[in-house]
Amino acid sequence: MERVLIVGTGFMGGSLALALRRSGFKGEIYGIDINPEALKKAKELGVIEEGFTEYGPVKEVAPDTVVIATPVRTFTDIARNLKGVISEDTVITDLGSVKGMLVFKLEEILGTKFVGGHPIAGTEKSGVENSLPDLFEGKKTIITPTERTDKEALKKVVEMWETLGSEVEFMDPFLHDRVFGAVSHLPHAVAFALIDAIERLSEEVDLFRYPGGGFKDFTRIAASDPVMWRDIFLENKENVIRSIDVYVESLKKLKSLMEEGKEEDLTRFLENVRVRRMNLR
Amino acid sequence: MERVLIVGTGFMGGSLALALRRSGFKGEIYGIDINPEALKKAKELGVIEEGFTEYGPVKEVAPDTVVIATPVRTFTDIARNLKGVISEDTVITDLGSVKGMLVFKLEEILGTKFVGGHPIAGTEKSGVENSLPDLFEGKKTIITPTERTDKEALKKVVEMWETLGSEVEFMDPFLHDRVFGAVSHLPHAVAFALIDAIERLSEEVDLFRYPGGGFKDFTRIAASDPVMWRDIFLENKENVIRSIDVYVESLKKLKSLMEEGKEEDLTRFLENVRVRRMNLR
Repeated sequence: MERVLIVGTGFMGGSLALALRRSGFKGEIYGIDINPEALKKAKELGVIEEGFTEYGPVKEVAPDTVVIATPVRTFTDIARNLKGVISEDTVITDLGSVKGMLVFKLEEILGTKFVGGHPIAGTEKSGVENSLPDLFEGKKTIITPTERTDKEALKKVVEMWETLGSEVEFMDPFLHDRVFGAVSHLPHAVAFALIDAIERLSEEVDLFRYPGGGFKDFTRIAASDPVMWRDIFLENKENVIRSIDVYVESLKKLKSLMEEGKEEDLTRFLENVRVRRMNLR
Repeated sequence: MERVLIVGTGFMGGSLALALRRSGFKGEIYGIDINPEALKKAKELGVIEEGFTEYGPVKEVAPDTVVIATPVRTFTDIARNLKGVISEDTVITDLGSVKGMLVFKLEEILGTKFVGGHPIAGTEKSGVENSLPDLFEGKKTIITPTERTDKEALKKVVEMWETLGSEVEFMDPFLHDRVFGAVSHLPHAVAFALIDAIERLSEEVDLFRYPGGGFKDFTRIAASDPVMWRDIFLENKENVIRSIDVYVESLKKLKSLMEEGKEEDLTRFLENVRVRRMNLR
C-alpha cells in the first residue's frame, strides 16, 4: 500500500485514515467526499493529504487501494464512478454494514479486486472531527470474499486490518447480513423505536425529563447517524424485518407472562436472559 | 435518625447503608434479610451493625427509621411483619420501583408514617458486595406522599435523601407508575426481549459470538436481577403492558417505513429520534 483513497471522509473513513497513520503507514492518503466542508476538516486535522469532491483527479492520484466509507446505498454509484478512474490493479474494499447482494453488485462493476469488509466497530458519533485512531484495535472485521475474489487483493485487505489490530473473520456475504441484521441492525431499530415510543407516551408528562433507570445508556445508539442507518435498514430490509418480527414475538411472550401473572415462568425467562447476557465476552 | 433498620441487605439496601455512613451518619444500622449469607456479608463489609433473619429482635433494636429495600412483591408481607415490632413513631420508607396502589396498601398497614420513595439509581449489579456509597449522589429520588402522609415523617425522608446528595421530586403514586412504566420498566422489557430474540434467531449461527455494534452496551441492563424485575413487571403490569403496546406500534411504524422503502420518511423518523436522544441531559 502506497496511495490510499478513502471515499467518504466522515467518522469511519477518518478513523481508518488515523488508524493507518498510527500503525506506521508512510504512504499518501487522499479523500473524496460530496461535502467540501468534510474534506476541509479532514485536511485540517491531517487525516488526508488532499481531498476532492469529484472523481476526475483520482486518475492522477492513481491509488493502489480504495476504501469506500460512505452510507451503503451510495456504493453502486461510487463503484461506477471509480471504475473509470482507477487502474485494473487497484484493490477496492469498503467499511459497509451491509454485504449480501451488494458485494456481488460491486464485484460485477469493479471486478475481482473488490473485497467486501465490515469492521465491527463504531460509535453513535459521526463526523471526521470525532474520528478515533484506535477504533479498530481489538475489534473483529468481517471479510466477505466470493468464489471470484482475487487472492492477492484478499490478502492485501486482510493484512491491512491485521496491521490495524483487528481480528479478521471470513463470512459468506448473505450469512453476514442475517447475522448483523440480528445482532446490530435489530438493536438499533429497537433503540430508535424506543425513543419514538417514549415520545408517544409523553402526552401526560414529558417523559424525557426522567432519563434514569438505564434509559440513557440504553438509547445511546439512537443518536447514530440517520442517513447511515436509513441506508442499512433499506439495504438489509429483509433480514431486519425478519429480526423485528422475531423480536416482537419475544416481546409478546414477555407480555403474556405478565398478563397471566406466571411468576415462575417469568422468573425463568428473566434468569435465562440474564445468564445469556452475562456470558457475553 | 439514630437507629436505621434496612429490610433487604442486597445491592440497594447495602448502597443506602454505605451512603448514610459516607454522609456522616453516626447512628446504628441494622439489617433484616431472609438470606443469612447476605447478612453475613453485609456485616463483614461493615454495612450493618447486626443482622436478623426474623422480625422478633427488631423490638429491641427499636429503629426510628425503617427502609424497605426488597423486591416490591414482598412489601405487604414485610409491612405486616414490621407492624408488630416497631413503635408508632417509626418512620418507614422504601426504595421500590413501583408505587401506585402499593403505597396505599402500605399506608393502610403501617399508618401515615409510611412515605413511599424511589431513588432513580441502580445498576445491573446485585448483591451487597457490589454496593456503592455514591449511588444516589446527584440522582433524582421520587417521593410519593398521599393526602394522609404525616408531615414530619415526610420531612425526615426528604432530609435523608437530600443528605445523600439526591434531588427530591414529589409525584403522585399512580403518575409515578405511568412515568416509570415507560422510561424504566419498558426499556428493561425491551432489553430482556432482545436477548430472547437473539437466542431465537441463533438457529443457524450462535449470534452471541458477535456482540459488537452496540449490542453489549445496549443489553447491559438485561443482566439485572430477575426476581426484582419479575416483581416490578407484575406489580406495574398495567402500565408496562400499555408501554409495550405503544412500543410495538413504534416498531411497526419503523418496519413499515422499511417495507415501503420510504427514504425521506425513514430519514425523518431517524432524525427525530436522534434529536430527542441528543437533547437528553
